[in-house]
Amino acid sequence: MPVNIPTLLPEHLLPIPGIKLGIAEAGIKKRNRKDLLVIALDGGTHVAGVFTQNRFCAAPVVVSKENLAKSSIRGLVINTGNANAGTGSNGIQHAHATCTALAGLLDCAPQQILPFSTGVIMEPLPIDAVINGLPLAVADLDENNWYDAAQAIMTTDIVPKGISRQIKLQDKTITVTGIAKGSGMIRPNMATMLGFIATDASIDQSLLQKMIHDVADQSFNRITVDGDTSTNDALILMATGRAGHREICNSESPEFFQLQETVIEVAAELAQMIVRDGEGATKFITVQVESGRNVTECKQVAYAIAHSPLIKTAFFASDPNLGRILAAIGYAGLKDLDVNQIQLYLGHVLVAENGGRASGYREEQGQQVMNESEITVRVILNRGSASTCVWTCDLSYDYVKINADYRS
Amino acid sequence: MPVNIPTLLPEHLLPIPGIKLGIAEAGIKKRNRKDLLVIALDGGTHVAGVFTQNRFCAAPVVVSKENLAKSSIRGLVINTGNANAGTGSNGIQHAHATCTALAGLLDCAPQQILPFSTGVIMEPLPIDAVINGLPLAVADLDENNWYDAAQAIMTTDIVPKGISRQIKLQDKTITVTGIAKGSGMIRPNMATMLGFIATDASIDQSLLQKMIHDVADQSFNRITVDGDTSTNDALILMATGRAGHREICNSESPEFFQLQETVIEVAAELAQMIVRDGEGATKFITVQVESGRNVTECKQVAYAIAHSPLIKTAFFASDPNLGRILAAIGYAGLKDLDVNQIQLYLGHVLVAENGGRASGYREEQGQQVMNESEITVRVILNRGSASTCVWTCDLSYDYVKINADYRS
Repeated sequence: MPVNIPTLLPEHLLPIPGIKLGIAEAGIKKRNRKDLLVIALDGGTHVAGVFTQNRFCAAPVVVSKENLAKSSIRGLVINTGNANAGTGSNGIQHAHATCTALAGLLDCAPQQILPFSTGVIMEPLPIDAVINGLPLAVADLDENNWYDAAQAIMTTDIVPKGISRQIKLQDKTITVTGIAKGSGMIRPNMATMLGFIATDASIDQSLLQKMIHDVADQSFNRITVDGDTSTNDALILMATGRAGHREICNSESPEFFQLQETVIEVAAELAQMIVRDGEGATKFITVQVESGRNVTECKQVAYAIAHSPLIKTAFFASDPNLGRILAAIGYAGLKDLDVNQIQLYLGHVLVAENGGRASGYREEQGQQVMNESEITVRVILNRGSASTCVWTCDLSYDYVKINADYRS
Repeated sequence: MPVNIPTLLPEHLLPIPGIKLGIAEAGIKKRNRKDLLVIALDGGTHVAGVFTQNRFCAAPVVVSKENLAKSSIRGLVINTGNANAGTGSNGIQHAHATCTALAGLLDCAPQQILPFSTGVIMEPLPIDAVINGLPLAVADLDENNWYDAAQAIMTTDIVPKGISRQIKLQDKTITVTGIAKGSGMIRPNMATMLGFIATDASIDQSLLQKMIHDVADQSFNRITVDGDTSTNDALILMATGRAGHREICNSESPEFFQLQETVIEVAAELAQMIVRDGEGATKFITVQVESGRNVTECKQVAYAIAHSPLIKTAFFASDPNLGRILAAIGYAGLKDLDVNQIQLYLGHVLVAENGGRASGYREEQGQQVMNESEITVRVILNRGSASTCVWTCDLSYDYVKINADYRS
C-alpha cells in the first residue's frame, strides 16, 4: 500500500478558470475503465513542457514536442493502456490521427493538440478505440473534473495523485492544480511519467518554459523507483492568465519567484506521491548528499544509493545492514574520494565516520530508524559545498509480483 | 535453485603441484561451518591479482594490494562471515594481525601473505576466531583439498564453484584449476567477489600480471547480478612453474596465448557459475551488443539491459514484454542514437527493427524463447564494428527474500 499519502477527495482539487477536463471509458486495454482524458484550454493559454530523454521516446512525445514548438495549444489528449512507444512510423501516424480527430471536435488545428500515452510498450495503439472515445470525453468536459482526470491517467498506480495550492499575487488569488501518474519505470530524466499542472496565473510564454525546467529539476527529476527511465515521461505546465493580475514578464520579479515556488511545491508533492505509490513500496526514503564538490557528484552518490537493490531490500526488511550504503558510496564513481572524510547518518543517528562504523553507534539506534516508514539517509562528503536530495522507496516482494504480472 | 550448473564433485578439481589447501571451522559468524581457508604456495610461485575499484574497499584488499606489489607470496588466507570492510584503521590492524599469525605458521614474512575476507560489511572482524582457526587450517594442508576449499569460501552461494582444465604445452601436461564464490552484490569491476585460479605452468611474473587483466575483462568483468560492486572483489592467478616446460617469457608466443585461452575458459566458466547461482536466479541471460561505435557504448547498452529491474522481472515471469528492452536501450545514454537502425533479437527471433516491432514477429515466438532457462538478448546497433557481451540473471521473489533476510 502507498506510504503515507493522504486520501485524495474530489474537493481537494480546485478548478482553474479557462480549463475543462473530460473523461471517457474507451476500452483501450480493458473494459469499464476510465482510460481517456481530454483537457481543453481557452484561447491564450500558455503551455510549456519537458519530455523524456529516452532515445526510444514514444510517438506522442515526438508529436507533442513538435506541436508545442510551433503552435498555441488548445487541447491535450491522454490515453492509458498503451504507450504508443516502440511503434515506429505507424505510431507517429496514430498520434497524428488522434490530434486530427480531437482538433475536429474542439474546432482548432491538429497542431494545437498535444497527445500523450502511457501503458505497454511496443504494441500498436488501438487507434479506433481512441478515436471512438474522443466524442464521449469531449461531451464530458467540465471545469470540476480534476479528480476524475487524476483517476483516468492511472496505470499501476494504486491511488490517484493530485494537489492544489492557492497564493495571493497583486491581491488576486492564484490557483495551481496538478495531477500526475506513475508508479514503476520511474527515473524521470526531465519529467515524470505524466504530470499536468495548471494555473490561472498570467505569465509570459518564455518565462513559463524557463520555469518548467527549474520545476522539473526540483521535483520529478529527483525521484526514482527502479531506475528505469520511461519512453513517455512528460510534464506539462499550463497558465490560462484568467486570474486578472498583470502578466509576469520578468524572471527576477517577486511575482515570478512566488509563483515558481508554489508550482515547485505542487510538483514536488506530486513527485513524492509517485514514490510513495511506487510499485510495492512500503517505505519512503529521502537520500540527502551534502558538501560535495558539485551537484553532479552529489547526484551520483544519491542515485547509487537509491538504485542499489541490496540497500532497497534492506530497507524493506527494516534491517540496518548499513555497510551496503558504504559500498554504494564507494562504487558511485567519484574520483579521489577519501572515504575517511565521509559521515553517514541514518535519520539523526551518526552511523559511520573515519572509514568505518562510528564509535558511538549502536545497532538498536539503526534498528529504531529502520522501523519507521519515512527514513532519511544523509551522506556528508566533506569536500565541497554542493548538495542534492533524491526521493525513493524500498524494493519488496510486491515490486517483483507487480512487474512479473503486469501484462496478464 | 542455480540455473544449469553441473554438480561439482571432488574429483572434478585437479591438484596443482606446489599448492596445498587447508580448511577450518573457525566459528567466525556461525558454528560448524567451514569458514577459513589457507592456501600455501611453494617458493618461486608467481602470483598476480586484480581487485575491486570500490573506494570503500575492504582492509584485506588494501593489505593484499600492498603485499602483492612488494613480495613473493607464500600464503593466502580467506575468511567468510565477515568482510572486514568499512572497518577503518582497526580493520587494517586485523588484516595485518592475520598475516603475521599465518606467516608464523608457514615460516615466512607477514608481507608474503595475502588476506581476503567476505561477508557482512561494517562489523568488526572477530580476529581471535580467525587467529585461533589458522593452526587448524594449516594442519589440514593438502594438495587435494580444492573441493573443500570451494565450499569454505561460500557465503550466500547455494553450490560450490570450481573447474579444472588441462592442455599440452611443449609436450607437458599443464593443469589449470580455479574456484570462486559470489552470488549477490555482483557487478565486478576488475574482479569478482573472490576467485582463485592456479596453474603449474611456468610464466614470467609480469606476463602473469598482464594475463590476469585480460582474463578479468573476458570473464568476471562481464557479469552482473544486481549491479552492486562489492568492497571485497579479488581475482588471484597463481603459477607454480612445476609442470617442467620452459618458462613463458613472450606475450606473443603461441604458449602464452594457449595458456591465456585456457585460463580465460576457466575464469569465464567460474564467472558464469556465479551468475547461474545469482541470488534468486531462475534464468541465465546473455546480453550481446553488436556493431556499436566502441566497446564502451556497447557495454552501456548491455548493462542498461542487464540492470533493469523491469526487464529482469519480465524474464522471471517468462513474459515477452520486450518493449522494456527498447526502453533500456533508449536510456542507456548513447548520443545521436538512431533507434530506427536498431535490430533486437530474442534468441534467434527478430523482435524489433525500424523503431518498432518487427513486422514478422509473433508473440508466440517471443513466448517460446522466454520459456527457456538460457536466453540470449542480441542488440545490433548498426553504427560501428565494436561488440561486447554481458552475463546476468533474472530478478525473482527469492532475490528479495535472500537479501531481506541476509543477516538474520
